[in-house]
Amino acid sequence: MSAPQPLTPADQQLVDAILAAGAAQRRALAKVITLLESTRPDHQTRAQQVLDTLLPHSGKAIRIGISGVPGAGKSTFIEALGLWLIQQGKRVAVLAVDPSSTISGGSILGDKTRMEQLCQREEAFIRPSPSAGSLGGVAEKTREAMLVCEAAGYDVVIIETVGVGQSETAVAGMVDMFCLLQLPNAGDDLQAIKKGIVEMADMVIINKADIDPRATRVAQAQWKKALHFVRPASPHWTPPVITLSALHKEGISEFWAQVDKFCAALQSSGEFAARRQRQAVDWMWSMIDAGLRQYFHRHPTIRASLPEISQAVAEGRTTPGAAAWRLLAVLQHN
Amino acid sequence: MSAPQPLTPADQQLVDAILAAGAAQRRALAKVITLLESTRPDHQTRAQQVLDTLLPHSGKAIRIGISGVPGAGKSTFIEALGLWLIQQGKRVAVLAVDPSSTISGGSILGDKTRMEQLCQREEAFIRPSPSAGSLGGVAEKTREAMLVCEAAGYDVVIIETVGVGQSETAVAGMVDMFCLLQLPNAGDDLQAIKKGIVEMADMVIINKADIDPRATRVAQAQWKKALHFVRPASPHWTPPVITLSALHKEGISEFWAQVDKFCAALQSSGEFAARRQRQAVDWMWSMIDAGLRQYFHRHPTIRASLPEISQAVAEGRTTPGAAAWRLLAVLQHN
Repeated sequence: MSAPQPLTPADQQLVDAILAAGAAQRRALAKVITLLESTRPDHQTRAQQVLDTLLPHSGKAIRIGISGVPGAGKSTFIEALGLWLIQQGKRVAVLAVDPSSTISGGSILGDKTRMEQLCQREEAFIRPSPSAGSLGGVAEKTREAMLVCEAAGYDVVIIETVGVGQSETAVAGMVDMFCLLQLPNAGDDLQAIKKGIVEMADMVIINKADIDPRATRVAQAQWKKALHFVRPASPHWTPPVITLSALHKEGISEFWAQVDKFCAALQSSGEFAARRQRQAVDWMWSMIDAGLRQYFHRHPTIRASLPEISQAVAEGRTTPGAAAWRLLAVLQHN
Repeated sequence: MSAPQPLTPADQQLVDAILAAGAAQRRALAKVITLLESTRPDHQTRAQQVLDTLLPHSGKAIRIGISGVPGAGKSTFIEALGLWLIQQGKRVAVLAVDPSSTISGGSILGDKTRMEQLCQREEAFIRPSPSAGSLGGVAEKTREAMLVCEAAGYDVVIIETVGVGQSETAVAGMVDMFCLLQLPNAGDDLQAIKKGIVEMADMVIINKADIDPRATRVAQAQWKKALHFVRPASPHWTPPVITLSALHKEGISEFWAQVDKFCAALQSSGEFAARRQRQAVDWMWSMIDAGLRQYFHRHPTIRASLPEISQAVAEGRTTPGAAAWRLLAVLQHN
């Protein structure tokens, strides 16, 4: 691999500010993430150089994913958790993957009035979802922002996502522990099972347990049953189903006790590191697949013949196999 | 697109025999499918030429997919259905997609003693699953065999699959109507919901309804509830949940009445043809994706640098994005 390019003085200053953990750190962090999210080629080159420089300092945080439908109380929970972690002497970064952010301008973390208390703490860094074109783009930027936050010494990185499309799969593919935040009512479990999200869950949290304790107990039992049907994500961990009230800040320490237990179980078995390695390689492959598609579409000969060949396939004048073979042959004879 | 090559006299004979619907038809059909399944390049070239010649004669059958776990009674049901269809004056082809066939030698349709009565009818053509290397390969060969059966004038093509991995998705992607064969016990529904199969179902059939009528009614209600949670595959069709006993040949005509209703609903809305077109184009794209991966892996520069770059990604020395970009750049500068 090629040696990293030297940084510009301005970028070196950004890197220094991020690694120094001083007063200028959070502003530098925000600037680097903005650079990462920029689509300008010169920004991209600079951003990747900064990232390469910071990379050896990343990897020390615990990465936690929080997913839930709108109304499940994600921001209330993350704020309560963040404040509690700060009390324990930890620094917390909160990022988001919101695939709808391109259209709506962001349904999560876009609103400054959310997590109002956490926002004001200097031990916290909160960043809304990038609004790149595709889910893959949004998720990639968030993953890179996570690495920058780790280099800045944040102890916990929380990645919030709303249960839309494949965003949960993307987030589960970048965190150490993936948690589902649920409401105490039936139906939710079926939705999650249907979409194959339950297999990815390392923990299920039933929020708003104070409102209806009976419904909460029913939901907890249903979730335990649902988890029983699926193979757990890890052979060293049985996903617990816990109940709490984020609004009343009840159950937060119990939640974190489970996080600690999870980390201990996976670290002692070596799975913690293995999972991160696998995630990084899987991530590379999904980016390669996306890049190959793009490469294919940009090829002038393919672009010229694709409409006619697609039409022939749709009309049954040629088989999908023969059409694919003809198009791919263009690349071979390049 | 290039003009089709002339057929060899032997292959022309195969084509003639298939189109003639005479006594030699079934043997010619078996020979062409064997040719399609062969991995020898000269066989592949000949097979594709034969397929191109037959293609204009394909597309007139109803394509039905039947999926279910081992023990659900798939072969008993297909035999009962096949015999009933023959009674109605129809000719029936039965094919299979069994991704385990490479390892085990085939768990479905491999055994000659299965569908014993249907085997003996000259109005039926039964073919076990091909045993190509990957699910994609197995499914592609089955899809091509289906087109050959259609050219031979079979009125109904039934494609059987066992609920392993992604085989259901592959079969749902090549048939007009995808049916789930289920046993009257709880738990099955959760498995299917979990794997996202319910969304693909155009009909759910609860078999062995004679054994426990009460459990059958419970299962039927559960399935209706489960289907209620998912968006139906077609806006013009609400998937029914029917009960029958394949062993006692009860409920077969009711099953077919639903097939007729389904075809009428989708044909009048134009969705029947649109779905086939979409399936063919999707099929082409999945083969292109597979081909692009293969192309990528075969590139000598990529093959040489992949192990080191993957290792660097796994160890966090480079980001997945930067690694993907470096590998893809090799193709660009080719």
